[in-house]
Amino acid sequence: MSDMPRYRQNEWISDQQISLDSSRMMAAKIGEAHGISVSQWEAIRGRVAAAHQTLSDARTAGSLPFFDLPTQDTGAIHQMADRVRARYKNFVVVGIGGSSLGPKATHNCLSPRHYNLLPDDQRDGPRFFLLENADPDSSAELLELLDPSETCINVVSKSGGTAETAANMLLATEWLDKGGADLTQQVIATTDPADGNLRKLAEREGWQTLPIPPKVGGRFSQLTGVGLLPAAVCGIDIDELLAGAAHMEARTRTADLEQNLAYRFAAVHYLADTQKQKPICVVMPYSDALSAMADWFVQLWAESLGKAYDRQGKVVNTGQTPLAAVGAIDQHSQVQLFVEGPADKMVTFLRVGEFTHQCALPDRYGDLDSFSYLGGQTMADLLGYEQAATEMVLTDLQRPSMRIDLPRLNPFVLGQLFYFYEVATAFAGGLYDIDPFDQPGVELGKVLTYGAMGREGFENRLAD
Amino acid sequence: MSDMPRYRQNEWISDQQISLDSSRMMAAKIGEAHGISVSQWEAIRGRVAAAHQTLSDARTAGSLPFFDLPTQDTGAIHQMADRVRARYKNFVVVGIGGSSLGPKATHNCLSPRHYNLLPDDQRDGPRFFLLENADPDSSAELLELLDPSETCINVVSKSGGTAETAANMLLATEWLDKGGADLTQQVIATTDPADGNLRKLAEREGWQTLPIPPKVGGRFSQLTGVGLLPAAVCGIDIDELLAGAAHMEARTRTADLEQNLAYRFAAVHYLADTQKQKPICVVMPYSDALSAMADWFVQLWAESLGKAYDRQGKVVNTGQTPLAAVGAIDQHSQVQLFVEGPADKMVTFLRVGEFTHQCALPDRYGDLDSFSYLGGQTMADLLGYEQAATEMVLTDLQRPSMRIDLPRLNPFVLGQLFYFYEVATAFAGGLYDIDPFDQPGVELGKVLTYGAMGREGFENRLAD
Repeated sequence: MSDMPRYRQNEWISDQQISLDSSRMMAAKIGEAHGISVSQWEAIRGRVAAAHQTLSDARTAGSLPFFDLPTQDTGAIHQMADRVRARYKNFVVVGIGGSSLGPKATHNCLSPRHYNLLPDDQRDGPRFFLLENADPDSSAELLELLDPSETCINVVSKSGGTAETAANMLLATEWLDKGGADLTQQVIATTDPADGNLRKLAEREGWQTLPIPPKVGGRFSQLTGVGLLPAAVCGIDIDELLAGAAHMEARTRTADLEQNLAYRFAAVHYLADTQKQKPICVVMPYSDALSAMADWFVQLWAESLGKAYDRQGKVVNTGQTPLAAVGAIDQHSQVQLFVEGPADKMVTFLRVGEFTHQCALPDRYGDLDSFSYLGGQTMADLLGYEQAATEMVLTDLQRPSMRIDLPRLNPFVLGQLFYFYEVATAFAGGLYDIDPFDQPGVELGKVLTYGAMGREGFENRLAD
Repeated sequence: MSDMPRYRQNEWISDQQISLDSSRMMAAKIGEAHGISVSQWEAIRGRVAAAHQTLSDARTAGSLPFFDLPTQDTGAIHQMADRVRARYKNFVVVGIGGSSLGPKATHNCLSPRHYNLLPDDQRDGPRFFLLENADPDSSAELLELLDPSETCINVVSKSGGTAETAANMLLATEWLDKGGADLTQQVIATTDPADGNLRKLAEREGWQTLPIPPKVGGRFSQLTGVGLLPAAVCGIDIDELLAGAAHMEARTRTADLEQNLAYRFAAVHYLADTQKQKPICVVMPYSDALSAMADWFVQLWAESLGKAYDRQGKVVNTGQTPLAAVGAIDQHSQVQLFVEGPADKMVTFLRVGEFTHQCALPDRYGDLDSFSYLGGQTMADLLGYEQAATEMVLTDLQRPSMRIDLPRLNPFVLGQLFYFYEVATAFAGGLYDIDPFDQPGVELGKVLTYGAMGREGFENRLAD
């Protein structure tokens, strides 16, 4: 890197940073019935200060190390990625939840659209696959497709105990063994640095390993080796991802609600949910490349804020329901409901300022009025107008929306967006006064499944 | 076909038909607070009878021809599909909304998982692609990938006026022309048999065409050439799809609410929404192959039932919000919210009885208790237990759910499912007393977009 990295130069940064326009959430724009009033906004300042203090204290105490991920050393990840890139034709992430959604979001956003179909010399890395679900057809058909001698398997699980990941790991390692592969070279375990059975197994078997920092939970792990190794393997600049995250870290340090865009995002969601009866928040990027990012956000928001109890142990059954949509596709699917159905939603649009391609539309068949207006314009313009039109229709109907503007899609911008959402979610946990870092509601399902599968120490309640 | 087609033999049918268990929606299973009581169930019989009468009358009058699609003649579709399969390496559907979601759902369910990556001799048809969104990067990168001389383009639009489809059609035809292709052979327009500019253009240019029956709307068009041509091109048995639909047609003709599973599905949704404060209905297949089917259902339910006015012109702002999830993946994402968050949801599980592969899990690393319980079992069992566990947890917490059981995934079963959902949605329109076949809420957005793009006759209100 040069003495003055480009992301520290002011001019470059102002052209690269994401912004948030939340004005259409407010009563001044859409009226008091569905818009947040000035008094409602002012009334939460005490809660905002408390939530900020809680986050700051935890951060200082080192109990929320996801905050500090932007400044990590990526040397070991680069080294491992280079080795994979040099040797293998296929890279398979074995993981689920936070271990698959983050890698998918990054790949979907920053790799070419039909990455796996590109000829080897046009692809910046091995082909990229996931063994995610416990779906027997998916697992069997992927392994049938690949050659074990050309494949590297990345098993990702913090605890090592995730059933779907464990099952796919067993399948994949057996398949590698039968194919004569060298597991010490072809298996990488990304897991806790010391604890858990995946760590134990990997060390005993001599597999490659990467650590997940102990206090970083699955859905906050995208900027650890969990998300960074798959990205680096596919030729994505992970230092730029982290530089973007670092830039957002600097922008979201302030306690000032108006200045801190992550806090502002959290606060308008919180107020819309609790004061304006908007239990559903739609995330709607106008970009195919951000469709997996929307799914990543859905997990983050749903699992972090959907909680039965508050910090005092009171039953609250809280949490907005996040809903992913993609523009303009969902204008032909869900938008009818968003516009005419119950006024129970708020929408966050994600708009990309500049696409890689403009896609000039040819002037053909111009004697027919269904086509004549398109010739000479670009597809990027069409998409931009469609986003603006949907936003205007909602605003006309006094339905709240806001917009995240991304100047373009690159690692620096995506790194900002990941970090932005993580801070916003952690902060929203403070506003709701719940713990955004646990997920107690899924434990019973695991226990029932273990019991049915005959795992020792788990009674089979499902059989009853 | 033999004298006695197998789908008419009783034994075969009882092993192939889908079933619906709605017992966990009822007060008897989950209590009066969230479950439908007997008196609530009895109270809607008048409404049910009226909705049945409306559908029956419309059907007799011929104004709802989607009902009669199962018995159509597929000769022309087969002929066209055979021609495409013999000549081309790539088949690209240019369409959005109902024109893309149906083809995707069928392909996702019935083609092998990594269909486009399979070698030519292992794939039963050309590679399958979509030009769906007005996303310039998606369109540009797909056309860069393909060779125009090997590609057939299927432009699908009922009216011919859909902006995204028109834009992608212009791009694709220009690309074919520049590549020296013969458009009269390589473009197929699936559109209205007489009206609209796509019909006019196709006939003038001498393109191949397939008709969409005039009174079949986009989201009900999966069993017309819209969905059947792409399926047949990829080697899917469309006569079995229609046989499945015909079987479901016979099962959903009765006015009896208990016997008619489509009516029952609609009625429990309607009651959960209007009597039990469940404005959100989750559709959660435990199968990767049904993930696009869930998206297809989301459009059908959202766009059909999300309506501002009832049939008397009264403002109702009605419509449940459908939410797609995939098991077991979403147990690590959305299920925490479904279990602990607000009690505002009902969940419909889709369970597959028998997968193509069982995926026996090898007995490896059995000294570690995170893995030992898996060895010797199958991945299909694991997935089945996970579904049962999630269902049991919801029931324990008095949260309503139901289950559609699909014996296996084949064209006969999928045809049943498409038709089942269509009848259920049409019938639900009757229960809500709204028109399930229009989508007035998206018209203003189109007008604003046309205006901004300078289309004649549309003022530019967006510029203001």
